Amino acid sequence: MRKIKITIAYEGTAFNGWQRQNNAVGIEEKVEEACKKIFIEPIKITGASRTDTGVHALGQVATFETSKDIPLKNIPYALNSKLPEDIVVVGAEVVHQDFHPRYSAIKKTYQYRIYNGQFLLPNLRKQVAFVPTELNIDLMEKACELFIGQHDFKGFSSTGSSVKTTIRTIFDMHLIIDQDLISIQVTGDGFLYNMVRIIAGTLIEVGQGKRSLEEVKEAIDLCDRNKAGKTAPAKGLTLVKIYY
Amino acid sequence: MRKIKITIAYEGTAFNGWQRQNNAVGIEEKVEEACKKIFIEPIKITGASRTDTGVHALGQVATFETSKDIPLKNIPYALNSKLPEDIVVVGAEVVHQDFHPRYSAIKKTYQYRIYNGQFLLPNLRKQVAFVPTELNIDLMEKACELFIGQHDFKGFSSTGSSVKTTIRTIFDMHLIIDQDLISIQVTGDGFLYNMVRIIAGTLIEVGQGKRSLEEVKEAIDLCDRNKAGKTAPAKGLTLVKIYY
Repeated sequence: MRKIKITIAYEGTAFNGWQRQNNAVGIEEKVEEACKKIFIEPIKITGASRTDTGVHALGQVATFETSKDIPLKNIPYALNSKLPEDIVVVGAEVVHQDFHPRYSAIKKTYQYRIYNGQFLLPNLRKQVAFVPTELNIDLMEKACELFIGQHDFKGFSSTGSSVKTTIRTIFDMHLIIDQDLISIQVTGDGFLYNMVRIIAGTLIEVGQGKRSLEEVKEAIDLCDRNKAGKTAPAKGLTLVKIYY
Repeated sequence: MRKIKITIAYEGTAFNGWQRQNNAVGIEEKVEEACKKIFIEPIKITGASRTDTGVHALGQVATFETSKDIPLKNIPYALNSKLPEDIVVVGAEVVHQDFHPRYSAIKKTYQYRIYNGQFLLPNLRKQVAFVPTELNIDLMEKACELFIGQHDFKGFSSTGSSVKTTIRTIFDMHLIIDQDLISIQVTGDGFLYNMVRIIAGTLIEVGQGKRSLEEVKEAIDLCDRNKAGKTAPAKGLTLVKIYY
């Protein structure tokens, strides 16, 4: 049996997140169905990141085992022929049996995109959060620095996840500015449930002058969800890359 | 009666082009309907550019006359409240009675976007032409220069348009490269039917080594549609800006 690691890009708009849910189509299910059609055997997909409804990916990772010897370079094309056009397999490689898409990951990069123009442009409408009010970029950049390092991010997570520890390390967090498009790029060893969206919501409030840098620092230090900002909309979030 | 000039952005995917057609919804019709709902009087829209099915816009322009005195700055918000989210009015101003969105235009900028990666990314799929084969960017840039200036572009237009002259001037044409995204940006005093898409199709063939620079020059000089490249797909084309 070969263990195959595939990298997947998707626009999350039309799906109820990565994971199969009751009465709702998940992206995982679509990929698994495509695998079954191509490999013509039972296939069980294991995904790296359970992205929420509306969240996008450029570099989601999943693995599965197969006894069929379809040439590796043909696998993305074969799977894409069975996938809708908003889910695209962009790479395939053989990995060791010990490889696990979730537990073998050493870091992940997410991008949260905010459109700060006066009117939300139609070509961006499904892929950004829309914030038409003025944003203080300098303050938002200073706020980014407060998150870098090892912290207990319990205050920046939604309840409902069961994790052993809420301590995470953010290696890098900075803004990328492209005219009216402001992207928060954040790389860490892992992220709690809704963590990037709550960080993004907090940064937006900093930019709007609704929240001071001291309050952000306090929110991190006190581990209290009520001290952090709102959860920013799912559609602004993209899982960019998972590093192994 | 005030004459109002509005600027409109749209994702053309879901519509049968700008102009109303038999049994098919045009963007013009959607905008006119929104105007009638807001101004509560008969409104006749005049558009600047009859973009084809699937073509997008960031700066389409249209005018209409109204007797109602809704404050100018409220007009985009009012119209957007009656428009689907893939059509967005991004500006409104009062213009002189002599202003005509088509005849008063002095130049227009179009962008044709080509995605040259191995797999078409889902977030770009409706807004680019997908060319996975290798492209020679240097040759494509040299080809751009051949189009600049005043030429008879009869060979770079589709039949079916009735124009007095097929002579047009291209003021600027160059490539913008952003990783795997290649954008052809072209500014001219006017464009014939399908002209930008035929130029884009020709440039793609140059990049693929299927067509030499000499052949491009010949296609321009001979005014023969059969000497030019294929018409590139509509979805890669965006009307960026109209200058007055």
